[in-house]
Amino acid sequence: MLVLGLDPGLALTGWALIDGGGGRVALREAGVWSTPSTQNQGQRLLTLWQSFADLAAAHRPDVVSLERLYFTRNVSTAMAVSQARGVLVCAAAQAGIELHEYTPNQVKQAVTGNGSAPKRQVAMLVRLLLGDGVPVRPDDISDACAVGICHQHAAGLSRALAVARL
Amino acid sequence: MLVLGLDPGLALTGWALIDGGGGRVALREAGVWSTPSTQNQGQRLLTLWQSFADLAAAHRPDVVSLERLYFTRNVSTAMAVSQARGVLVCAAAQAGIELHEYTPNQVKQAVTGNGSAPKRQVAMLVRLLLGDGVPVRPDDISDACAVGICHQHAAGLSRALAVARL
Repeated sequence: MLVLGLDPGLALTGWALIDGGGGRVALREAGVWSTPSTQNQGQRLLTLWQSFADLAAAHRPDVVSLERLYFTRNVSTAMAVSQARGVLVCAAAQAGIELHEYTPNQVKQAVTGNGSAPKRQVAMLVRLLLGDGVPVRPDDISDACAVGICHQHAAGLSRALAVARL
Repeated sequence: MLVLGLDPGLALTGWALIDGGGGRVALREAGVWSTPSTQNQGQRLLTLWQSFADLAAAHRPDVVSLERLYFTRNVSTAMAVSQARGVLVCAAAQAGIELHEYTPNQVKQAVTGNGSAPKRQVAMLVRLLLGDGVPVRPDDISDACAVGICHQHAAGLSRALAVARL
């Protein structure tokens, strides 16, 4: 199963294609989509839409995995991220790709075994699991990898439970 | 000039096509796009996207007019509205339609002459300007009319200023 992990943002969206199966995960490819602040928001959101559509057509991921948003501060950042996120969720639906969401704690738990692990530790474990091919900067790529790994783990667990019930 | 005023929301998006010219405004058509809460968010956002695309293809509005978002409370509502808003802004860019945004105060000022007019007064003036064809419920339609009128006024003022400068 190929999972596309996304860390949405208007200026920078991290993405990571995570292969999985048999309890193992591997990085296929990762990167960022960036949109210049000189463009208006419509053009920037359209660039995101198109970037998603191109990647989906090229790699045909089975699942898109995203973090649920929990913002308590900085409402204007939350709104800008949500606009970008809405566009990506919509583009996934248009491409007919299943979407799964996880809380930040679920992502940390899946990657590090600790639901309240600090960000640095999550990034370290991502590189340990996927290898040094994961760029260290920007954080958005490592975050996209983490939410992709999280879905692979959750899906692996579902399969194991289904087998156990047979 | 034909302006499409929008009041975005995930469950309910109000829309209004406002014709203008020569200092007058008229309602061409208005309504709501609603998405059932039984669908997942991707399907709901895709319904919004498609509804916008269909309306844009049928009526070819010159401009889309939207309120700027200023949320200070209820961040989760702000994020849901922003996801829907992002999809509509992106769809407008894809349709090649110019987008203008106004603050809530600018909209109230344009419709009532008072930037801090209460919501009820704005709705009353919208019906006075556009006639009884404007549905009283839901509020979303009247709000979409108001932001459409606001752009017509702003555009009229720009034209008048351009003429005065000649």
